[in-house]
Amino acid sequence: MKSETKKAVVLLSGGLDSATVLAIARSLGYRLYTLSFSYGQRHVFELEAAGKIAESMGSEKHLVIKTNLNDIGGSALTDDITVPKDRNMSEMTGPIPVTYVPARNTIFLSFALGWAEVLGATDIFIGVNAVDYSGYPDCRPEYISAFETMANLATKAGVELNTHICIHTPLITLSKSQIIRQGMTLGVDYSMTHSCYDPDPSGRACGSCDSCYLRKKGFEEAGIKDPTIYS
Amino acid sequence: MKSETKKAVVLLSGGLDSATVLAIARSLGYRLYTLSFSYGQRHVFELEAAGKIAESMGSEKHLVIKTNLNDIGGSALTDDITVPKDRNMSEMTGPIPVTYVPARNTIFLSFALGWAEVLGATDIFIGVNAVDYSGYPDCRPEYISAFETMANLATKAGVELNTHICIHTPLITLSKSQIIRQGMTLGVDYSMTHSCYDPDPSGRACGSCDSCYLRKKGFEEAGIKDPTIYS
Repeated sequence: MKSETKKAVVLLSGGLDSATVLAIARSLGYRLYTLSFSYGQRHVFELEAAGKIAESMGSEKHLVIKTNLNDIGGSALTDDITVPKDRNMSEMTGPIPVTYVPARNTIFLSFALGWAEVLGATDIFIGVNAVDYSGYPDCRPEYISAFETMANLATKAGVELNTHICIHTPLITLSKSQIIRQGMTLGVDYSMTHSCYDPDPSGRACGSCDSCYLRKKGFEEAGIKDPTIYS
Repeated sequence: MKSETKKAVVLLSGGLDSATVLAIARSLGYRLYTLSFSYGQRHVFELEAAGKIAESMGSEKHLVIKTNLNDIGGSALTDDITVPKDRNMSEMTGPIPVTYVPARNTIFLSFALGWAEVLGATDIFIGVNAVDYSGYPDCRPEYISAFETMANLATKAGVELNTHICIHTPLITLSKSQIIRQGMTLGVDYSMTHSCYDPDPSGRACGSCDSCYLRKKGFEEAGIKDPTIYS
């Protein structure tokens, strides 16, 4: 689908995946409205990265929703739970990991839905991925499909205006290396992106959490140099 | 269903409906966890009412999620749009009103879902109502049903633990007068509740917005004296 004037709301975490999604939405001709969340993450480097990426890709407006999601608790990404380190691929499968934030994608997509409605947009982009999926229930296609069904019943857009809200997940079936290759083709500057769950105080990636592991492996498999400086 | 130990997350706005829902959840024996939102409403009286109601009904924890939902805009309840006054029932049907907040119930239910997951609760209560429904798409049974389906795909609870998340809407088919009668039976003190969209600076209800109109009409039809002092 190519449109010069259609607006899209793009969820932007500041990581590798969502930066690629933003580049994809841009390549499809959408006017970009980027949405990030300050929710009590353990560090702000991801959010800073999101702002830079939004600007560099020509986002018309970058909105940061602030919320005390951390008051709900329940995750190593917001609580004082230790982030697991030095796990390989096989160790990442199985139970839902401690880095899972309860209902996070649902909360993020709900805000995106509200903003889309106000903007008159019916297209929402999110960088979920079911391949390198390490046990997050809200990254699966059946979840996204159920959210889309709900979204079309929840809103003016779906009910009154006879339009269809679409949740785009262009990465959902791609491997990390495929994502990186596609992003490189579309001009993503991955040195701007931040993936690490547990950076040092200067923002340098740890190189050993699950997210760093998947990032390094992705660049390796893509045969592309990872611009990240690991500590 | 009667359970002494089961936990329920109850969305509590501070209005008449959600106070009644809380009383219903209490009467079913749930341990109560109440959730309110500070999202840039035009006034704080509703939130103050929610705190008082939660305490009076024995909520184990009352959590207030703060978020700049108003930055998204699009509603008379958060923006500088005039709240309609002096409309009767027939004038309230038709197009979705300006007091509709885009995706509000979806956002609220998403946070409730996250908190429920952390608490190990599978029961969420919300006071939506499809009878005195004045055009809000996210108050309809088909919307709630779609949210529940999505919720069971979104979470650990639905995926791993073989439990079922249930969105309870005990008011959905009741008229305002039936809600009030049920609440009176369950000991709700309606003088604590706040319904008005546009109170005066002291918090006194205007008596002429849609919400005041429906409240007054409900008490009248129930044959119960409305404890509200209108300005």
